[in-house]
Amino acid sequence: MDENGSSAPGDHYPADGALPFDVFSRQCPSRGTLEHVTGRWGSLTLGALREGSLRFNALRRRVDGVSEKMLSQTLHALERDGLVHREAQPTNPPRVDYELTPLGRQVADQLLALIQLVEGRMSEVLLARGQYDEAHADPS
Amino acid sequence: MDENGSSAPGDHYPADGALPFDVFSRQCPSRGTLEHVTGRWGSLTLGALREGSLRFNALRRRVDGVSEKMLSQTLHALERDGLVHREAQPTNPPRVDYELTPLGRQVADQLLALIQLVEGRMSEVLLARGQYDEAHADPS
Repeated sequence: MDENGSSAPGDHYPADGALPFDVFSRQCPSRGTLEHVTGRWGSLTLGALREGSLRFNALRRRVDGVSEKMLSQTLHALERDGLVHREAQPTNPPRVDYELTPLGRQVADQLLALIQLVEGRMSEVLLARGQYDEAHADPS
Repeated sequence: MDENGSSAPGDHYPADGALPFDVFSRQCPSRGTLEHVTGRWGSLTLGALREGSLRFNALRRRVDGVSEKMLSQTLHALERDGLVHREAQPTNPPRVDYELTPLGRQVADQLLALIQLVEGRMSEVLLARGQYDEAHADPS
């Protein structure tokens, strides 16, 4: 399913190794998983859960700016891909925790390395932006 | 600027270290850069350029499915962030090559590690999807 819940052609990609998984091919389901993992909310959700399991509302506070609907969709896609585990406690009201699976943890570790690289080099990025804007400024 | 060319609040985030860069904060410009880097087309563009410099049309063929407009927007955002360098040769017609900057190469290396992890574990992801769909199937 994509984020709208419809079936994607990639769901029927041969998993028997007849074709290698390749994100550069638009038919390959790995592209969809990469998008779930690197999407605006997917990456922050995985990053937040790397610190430990969280309930829905705590997760929503941590991922600043996400709507309830988008977080819910994001969690479903990550759960379906086997990256996040949803654990419902039989309490009243039910308590639901989200945590990374072992595969989700590996993916989150790679993502966090990328996030830390980006955060650590933002001074250079902002400098580059300033230079770009100056070079492309309207001379009027 | 965001992808539509408007100025984002993050452009004026203090670069003097008064606030740490933090992708979890919606005001922080690092979130925008992370999105340029991990977006559907940004990640594939950086991944493709990791193999070497490419002209626009070659890049478009490699990033299967991207439109001319989206590739152009993606390249502008990555160039503005200082991750991609655009080199125009003074030939007629002008020849334009795109290549990674040293910072772009570091970011692309992290991205490729993530891509390879996802591609390498897609059999598990597809298995998880099948189990999820079975557990959530309409019983009718």
